[in-house]
Parts: sequence; structure tokens; C-alpha cells
Amino acid sequence: MFLAYMKESAYHTDDTIAALATPWGASALALIRASGVGSIEQLSALFRPALKLTRAGGNTTVHGVLVDPETQEPLDEVMVIVFRAPRSYTGEDGFDITCHGSLPGVSAILDALRRTGFRDAEPGEFTLRAFLNQKMDLTRAEAVREIVDSKSRQAHVMALRRLSGSIEERIAILRQRLLTLSARIELILDYPEDEFDEDPQVDIAPLKSVIGDLEALLATFRTGRLFQEGVRVAISGRTNAGKSSLFNLLLREDRSIVSEIHGTTRDYIESWISIRGIPVSLFDTAGLRVGTDPVEEEGIRRTREVMDAADLVIYLVDAQEGVNAEDRTVLENPTFGQRCVPVWNKIDAAGGVMPTGFIPLSALTGEGFEKLENAIANHFLGDAAATADVAVIDSERQKTAIENALLALAHVASGIELSTPLDAVATDLKDALDAFAELSGEITSADVLEAMFSQFCVGK
Amino acid sequence: MFLAYMKESAYHTDDTIAALATPWGASALALIRASGVGSIEQLSALFRPALKLTRAGGNTTVHGVLVDPETQEPLDEVMVIVFRAPRSYTGEDGFDITCHGSLPGVSAILDALRRTGFRDAEPGEFTLRAFLNQKMDLTRAEAVREIVDSKSRQAHVMALRRLSGSIEERIAILRQRLLTLSARIELILDYPEDEFDEDPQVDIAPLKSVIGDLEALLATFRTGRLFQEGVRVAISGRTNAGKSSLFNLLLREDRSIVSEIHGTTRDYIESWISIRGIPVSLFDTAGLRVGTDPVEEEGIRRTREVMDAADLVIYLVDAQEGVNAEDRTVLENPTFGQRCVPVWNKIDAAGGVMPTGFIPLSALTGEGFEKLENAIANHFLGDAAATADVAVIDSERQKTAIENALLALAHVASGIELSTPLDAVATDLKDALDAFAELSGEITSADVLEAMFSQFCVGK
Repeated sequence: MFLAYMKESAYHTDDTIAALATPWGASALALIRASGVGSIEQLSALFRPALKLTRAGGNTTVHGVLVDPETQEPLDEVMVIVFRAPRSYTGEDGFDITCHGSLPGVSAILDALRRTGFRDAEPGEFTLRAFLNQKMDLTRAEAVREIVDSKSRQAHVMALRRLSGSIEERIAILRQRLLTLSARIELILDYPEDEFDEDPQVDIAPLKSVIGDLEALLATFRTGRLFQEGVRVAISGRTNAGKSSLFNLLLREDRSIVSEIHGTTRDYIESWISIRGIPVSLFDTAGLRVGTDPVEEEGIRRTREVMDAADLVIYLVDAQEGVNAEDRTVLENPTFGQRCVPVWNKIDAAGGVMPTGFIPLSALTGEGFEKLENAIANHFLGDAAATADVAVIDSERQKTAIENALLALAHVASGIELSTPLDAVATDLKDALDAFAELSGEITSADVLEAMFSQFCVGK
Repeated sequence: MFLAYMKESAYHTDDTIAALATPWGASALALIRASGVGSIEQLSALFRPALKLTRAGGNTTVHGVLVDPETQEPLDEVMVIVFRAPRSYTGEDGFDITCHGSLPGVSAILDALRRTGFRDAEPGEFTLRAFLNQKMDLTRAEAVREIVDSKSRQAHVMALRRLSGSIEERIAILRQRLLTLSARIELILDYPEDEFDEDPQVDIAPLKSVIGDLEALLATFRTGRLFQEGVRVAISGRTNAGKSSLFNLLLREDRSIVSEIHGTTRDYIESWISIRGIPVSLFDTAGLRVGTDPVEEEGIRRTREVMDAADLVIYLVDAQEGVNAEDRTVLENPTFGQRCVPVWNKIDAAGGVMPTGFIPLSALTGEGFEKLENAIANHFLGDAAATADVAVIDSERQKTAIENALLALAHVASGIELSTPLDAVATDLKDALDAFAELSGEITSADVLEAMFSQFCVGK
């Protein structure tokens, strides 16, 4: 069914695909990945010396020149890493081209590959092929995307743990326990009641244990999403409350080493920082003040928008000025109550008595910064802080499958408890097992697959 | 001498270096390159299974996991391409790591490499090592940078030709001819005059031919720079002359496939287009109008700045409106005379009689676009258009060395013609040969090398 559907989709499985797998930009090197039956032979139309390539064994490299298939003009001096099925990422024949990171050069190579019959790979298509060729199950395929998209070291470690198969293993164990239960029910159903010495019982304890474990896995979803998707934090407060100083302090104190690399895009540094491993998208806002002229009013309107969209607002009050009526309209606003961290700033310059619930800080000297970090991390993590060390799910698809399994298992449990006829219980159990199969990708509809892989970046 | 100097510089040659060689950004894959004696053994502290790596032959790949050297926490699932000296880019042992293109992941790997003893590579340091290990001469090393920096397909092809050694070969042939001349002079000097049957002569014809060839090579410098550095073109004209339409037309007609790639940075597309292979940085400007309010005056001041800085100004006149006094102040301005292409736009909507020297265009329908392209290309190329097919120099360093050689050879020629004592001629010839040796890098001062390689990007 899947393959039949795929014929109408952009994802085919019987042709050769290629894509630039590294970012588009001038750099020392670029990497172009390709896969598919016959892909190495196809490349040999461009590669000189061609025989060196076609004779190369799997997992070896050949050095040579790529030429235009029509004019034979050289395109670039390259290294080709040859993969032979099934020992490759996709499980098919394929190759990586390491070429110079020149934009016109990379374009020319991709263009030549197209003219030689390679199709531009769709997002996630290499991983899709890996899944279809049974190189990985769906939870691991999802982990690949999560690794690439991870915005903090912590998120990266979690995704890596998923890639190494920790969810796959955990699900496999739970499933095995359900299969034992299922076998017991089938046995009772297959034999007439009078063949048993006593009334045949289905022990509910192992079922409850599976439900408990699944619920625990589901509970990791919030943490998983938190670390993968990150949160939006806005810094707000009246003019001169020290918003920019705090903004700079947060950027500076960020221990993630994003900024140490040459050629870092400034946009990126400024949009994502990491607080205790949580990726934080930080927004500075214009000072809040009761506006009189239209320009200022527009600024305040935008500030409100940013505050409304934020998961957390750090609200600064200048300790020297104290809380005034404007501050109160924000701090006592029920919309912000649950997601506001009030900060008593400029404690270096002394000031009045701090109201309760505030965090003392000097954005200038950094004093009190750790307390603020704790408050931010606690706001998001609560008591989930420790879950980083176990398998954590973060995909909506996995969450839905687990919820479906739990729903079916609840029916199974109540069926057993209420002595419902066992054939009805067996049907519910079958539904639960199907949900497990969906989780690993053994049962999957084509649209689920396409929806999932289209979220990948190209070249993966 | 060079090595001694390097001890005080950031470029050492006796340690192991590593760098991210692909652009910094989330993507499917990233490539980290490393080189140096002992680099593979150093990496084995991070790689699992370690033995698979240390036993790997040159030009083969190993698949495994990188772990933190202290905590043994996994950092990423990677492929390592192993190079064994001397069969590598640098001529040393080394490796490429293909890892997931996750920013925190790449950071973690680079950090782990540092803690294992790898130093962050300086710009161009891999190519510097290739040069020092005699894998390439200096003209080819320069070509490597030019390939990465090339902004149009044409520039890329030219740099590629330099990499394949066409300048190196051409210089080698000229040098050989000078060495023959030098041998002849040494012979005459070594033997007393009376041992020759007749008065010993130095034939000046081969010398003149070498000078002619060198001058031809020097003449390619302007074209080389043009294609490598590109030009700045501003579109100007009164309000409503059709500037934005032409801007869009130029972007759309650009045949470079920069824009076909997923994830293209919009900044890049908009700043560089390619006209007949010449990389063109295109500037749209605010309409010129005699300003009355301060905001408009500021816009016009900026327009003038852009026009002043441009290598060429395309000046649009609306055919329906004709040339007015404002247009004349620009068109008859002596500063713009030499670098202005006047365009008679909106010919689709008819209009008055076109003044001479204008190019008829409809920026709306594209009619006349080819003529405009020709005019732009001719402005920059003149009769140099054909030189794209031969070796072209574009490096200031190469230009200086050739000029030095030409200066010394002019002395040699006049010395021979004026029958100056041959030992003085021999000294000049020695200077010319030294200039040749500088061109190829056989004689090089450390500061020239450092200045040259520091222009590279990191990872190359």
C-alpha cells in the first residue's frame, strides 16, 4: 500500500536522489549526498577517472575530477565516498561527494547530477529510504530529525539517546508483556471452558504495570517538547528598568559554545540561548509607558504582543524606583500571573525594600543571576528536571500512538475487571498492539509517513 | 627560515589541527576536518569502537560513535574518513568527520577534539600544510581560495583552471627558456673571450618572446580580478522610471542557479547576480528628485553615495517622459560619463524619439534586455572577453611577482642591447629567476605566506 501511494507522491523509491546536505553558503567544503540503485554507475558519467569509481569498494574514497556530462568541462576536484548496499545509511548504493564550498561550483555539480538522471531529494528522503529498507524503525528516524533540529546540548543528548534506540527498546519490552497476555487470552478462547480445571483467570497485574509504564513514557512528552522546541521568554518592564542589560547578561552568560565558531550567523546567537539546557528564544521589548504620541503607542502595542506570545515574561522593576501603578497593571494582570518572573533589578545601587515574590538582581554586575536562572528553569521543568536521563518522547506522532495504546488498554483492563466476554477483550488488546506497531512504524499509513518526513531538512 | 618564523605565528606545523569545514548552520550533515601527525590516534580517544579506527587503512571510512573523552557520554553517531600520509590533502595523516548538522552537536564534537589536543585550525591552514608538504605550489594554493570565493560560474571555471595547474605550467615553460639563456651567459662568462672562434653573442629573440608572454599573462590580471571580485552596478533614475522593474528583471534573468537550492539565503541572491559570467552586486536606489523635505533629501544623499561607489550606473529614463533637466544633471555629470549606461525604458508603451547613446528597453516585457546585458558586459570586458579561455591571474601577489620579473628582464634586455658587461646582465637575470621562484612559492618569505593564507576561510 505504501509503495502504491508513493507513486503519486514526490517520494519515490525506485530512482536515484541527490541533495546538498550541508548548509548553502561559501565555505571550505560542501557535501552532496546521493542514493539509489545504479547511482554509482550514473555518477561515473561525470567522474574522471570513471573506472576508479566503478571499481571502488564500499566504504572507500576515490579522488578525482567531476566534469560536465556534455562539454566535459571540469566542474570541481572532488573526493567521492562510495557506499555499497546494504552497508550505507539508506541501505542502497550511494555516495557522498566532498567538493569545494563554492556556491557556483556546488550549483554546477547539482545541475550536472540532475542532467545525469538524479532527482532532487525531498526533505527527509534519505532517512525515509533507510526506514523502508529496515535500517531503522520510525522512532529512530524521528530522532534523526530531532538531532539536526536540536537547539541546546541537552536537547541534542536526548535526541541522541532516542537514536541509539532507547524508546524502541522500551516499547519492545512493553509489547512483549502484552503479547504474553494476549497469548493467555487466546489460549482460554481456543479451549472450551470445561477443559480447564478451575475457572480460567486473566491476571490483571501485568496489564496494570504496562499501563503504568506507558503513562510514565507519555509524561516525558512535555519535557521532550520543552527541550526540543524550546521556549519564548520576553524581557519586559518600564523604560530604564535595565532590560537591555539583562538581555546582554543572558547572552553573555550562555555557556553554549555556539558563539565560539568562526562564521557564526549573528541572527542565530541572538535568537537562541540555552538556560540549564532549555533552548530559550529571547525577546527584548520596548519600554512600557503610558503612550501619548502614536509612535510610542505602536511600540507598546508590539510589546504587548510579544508578552502575550511569550511562555514566560521576566518583568523588571528598578529597585531605586519601586513598583508603581504601571508595573501593577502588568504584575496584577491575571493573564501574566502564571507566567511572570518579577525581578528587583539594580540591587547594586541599593534602593527600597523588595516586595515578596521578586528575585533580587543586578543585571549590571551579574549578582543574583543564578537565582534568576533557577527560577526560569524551575518554571518550565517543575519536578521534571530529572527526566533528562531517561528515554523522553517528543514527537506528536509518538504521543498519539501511546495515547491510543493507553485508551485501548484501559478498555482491556475494565473488560477484565468487569468480566466482559474475552473475545471483546481480545479485540481491544489487538487495538493496543496495533498502536504499538504504529509507534515503531511496522504499521504505518503513507500520509503519516509523508507528513513526518516532510518536516526533515533536505539532504537527511 | 620559514619554520623558525612559524614558531612565533599562529600557524604551527608540528601539531594537530581541526575545524568545521562546512558552513555553520542547522543542516542534514556537517563536516569536520582534521590533520597532523598522530591525529588518528588522538581521535581514537573519542571514537568507539576505537580499534576499528586505528586499524582503518587510508581512504576508507569507519562508522561509529564519538564520545566525550571524560564522561564517555555519546556526542554523535558519525562516519570518519581516514587519510594516511602522504595520500591526503595536507600530505599528513588526517580525517574528515561527517556528523549530523546539529549546532549543539557540532559544538560538542569540536570541544571534545580540543580537549583531546587538537588546535583550532587557522584560516587556510590545511592548504598551507599541503603547500609546505609539497602537495601543491603557491599558484595552485591561491586557486583553492579563489574557487571557494568565486561568485559566478565563470569565475569558478577560471579558478578551477588555475587549480589544475595551467599557470604553474605556463610559468615553468617560460622559466625553462630563461634558464637556457642563463646557461648561455654563464658559459660565456666562464670561458675567456679568446677561446671562442668568433665574438660570443647572446641572442635577444628568446628573451623578447618571454617578455611578451609575461606581459600577456599580466594583462589577464584585470579580467581575473573582474571575475573574482565582481563589480558594483547601481540602477538609478527619476521616480517611476522603472528601476524596480529592471532590478527584478535582472534578478529573474540571472541564469546562475543560486536560487534553485533549498535553504538559499535571500541576502545572497539579492546581492550577487551574474551577467555573462561577471559577478554583479546590484544596487537599487531611491528615485532622484529635487528634494524639499528632509527625509527625501536624506534618500537622495544616499542614492548619490551608491552611485559614487558603483563601477557602473544604469540610468533609466522613462520614454514617455523624455530627458528632463534633472536627468541631464546626472547624464552630463563628468563623474558619471565614463561609467554610465543610459537606458530608454518603457518602449512597450511607445514614447518620444530616443536620444543617441541610449539603449531601448522594456523592463516590463524584457524586450531589449540582451542589448543591455551586452552593454554591461562590454563596459567591463572590452576586448578582453575572450581571455576567459586561457590561464588568468587574479592574485595581487602573482601580479607583483610578474611585474618584478618583467622589470628585471627589461634590464637584461637593455643590458644585452647596450653590450653591458655580461656579469651585470647575469645578476639581472638572476633577479628575474628569483621572481619566478616567488611566483611558484619556491622562494617565499614567511610574512607573504601568512598574509596569503590568512585570507582563506577556516577549514580549508
